[in-house]
Amino acid sequence: MPLQVSSTTRRGTRRQPAASRRAILRAALAAFARKGLAGARMDAIAAAAKVNKALLYYYFRDKEALYDAVLDDFFVRLLSRVTRALDGAGPAGERLLTYARAHFDCIAESLHYARLFQGELMSAGRGKSSHLTRVVDQYIWPISLRLVEVLQAGMASGEFRQVDARQFAPSIAGMIVHYFLVAPVARKLFSRDPFSQEALQQRRAAVLDFIAAALFADQSAGVKLAAEVASRAEAQPRVASQVAKTSTRRLRVQGKHK
Amino acid sequence: MPLQVSSTTRRGTRRQPAASRRAILRAALAAFARKGLAGARMDAIAAAAKVNKALLYYYFRDKEALYDAVLDDFFVRLLSRVTRALDGAGPAGERLLTYARAHFDCIAESLHYARLFQGELMSAGRGKSSHLTRVVDQYIWPISLRLVEVLQAGMASGEFRQVDARQFAPSIAGMIVHYFLVAPVARKLFSRDPFSQEALQQRRAAVLDFIAAALFADQSAGVKLAAEVASRAEAQPRVASQVAKTSTRRLRVQGKHK
Repeated sequence: MPLQVSSTTRRGTRRQPAASRRAILRAALAAFARKGLAGARMDAIAAAAKVNKALLYYYFRDKEALYDAVLDDFFVRLLSRVTRALDGAGPAGERLLTYARAHFDCIAESLHYARLFQGELMSAGRGKSSHLTRVVDQYIWPISLRLVEVLQAGMASGEFRQVDARQFAPSIAGMIVHYFLVAPVARKLFSRDPFSQEALQQRRAAVLDFIAAALFADQSAGVKLAAEVASRAEAQPRVASQVAKTSTRRLRVQGKHK
Repeated sequence: MPLQVSSTTRRGTRRQPAASRRAILRAALAAFARKGLAGARMDAIAAAAKVNKALLYYYFRDKEALYDAVLDDFFVRLLSRVTRALDGAGPAGERLLTYARAHFDCIAESLHYARLFQGELMSAGRGKSSHLTRVVDQYIWPISLRLVEVLQAGMASGEFRQVDARQFAPSIAGMIVHYFLVAPVARKLFSRDPFSQEALQQRRAAVLDFIAAALFADQSAGVKLAAEVASRAEAQPRVASQVAKTSTRRLRVQGKHK
């Protein structure tokens, strides 16, 4: 495919491949979240990213490939952050609550993804699920395995009560992500922005409290630790307006088109 | 609108209005769950329900009205069952766990609704949400209020630990419904039918266990009560194949077209 690169389009050159890729992924994420995979249009994405359409196709051979890259952009970051938490030093309770906070924060920083994932769930429910299958195999399955290991370690040490780890792991993950999936309900129910900095911080604290209370053999010790982990200064949940900056800083794309 | 009722179509007569309505709602639910509101077609629904298309329009003036009636069909039943549990006799812990089981069972008996609701969430996320607004106002809000009341009663009596009821109520509801929303993930993750009788019973027990452990001041007493409520003989969760029969028996439609 011949490249028609305009020298006046700031990001439309191959001299800034990383910046162009980032701009495309950001524009594509917004478009897919708003319109879905079927509804989003490649020329609109190119225009929003301020890149030449030929360059868009140079990086991502088609819309499916771009969609895959957008999913990877999120899940590579998620996997890396939650794995760091789950595999970290310290007792199982500390690791599990740090994981819960990292998982919550990762979604809070990339709110568009909740809608993308909702779309995937619905497609899968209707029998179209190639993307979801890949995401489960590549990202959700490894996270689940590590989460089960931490639960088993905590039960073995007596820090956690005895639970069925294969049921408890999805319950924990569900408690974390559910808020983002049903945000439209929360918006109507409480007449406030469920994604304001304040709402996100309160919700995160409540989620960690719920998980700790359900899991720790010493309930009050668990709840206390959850409050401490939730209020740590580092990794504050970022609001939507800061998503772009964050994405740029943390971008580690492992797409098929490097 | 003139009615052209064929005397040979068994359900296509006005002599059996209840049976016709039930057949239409059942066919419409399946069509909306599979195709969405936009994709489902009125003549396909009439054919599946084995009623004359004119009769379909006689009962439901258009597709929107039919969709409303399908949502009402589910939520009227849900509201009635969970209200009975929440307003029942007995201490708050018993009422709350009976509610959790009733809410879980109600969705397990009407699996198509999870997909319908997913579609509503996604539309709302994209700014189109007239149906969700009505469902929240008419059904979810009253359930939330009662749930908060029961939480407050349990905290006042010392049965529950002190929690923020406005955060805890959606956490409990989320723990119950989340499994159904993300069933496509569970199907891939565990390579088994998440809606088998066995899977549903195990999940229900795990959900009640999680909620009780997180909530009761005496964690082990709560967990014990949860196991007892989960294994009660009455109101066994029904599997998908029994949905139709169940819907027929419990139908209490409060649509606009009575």
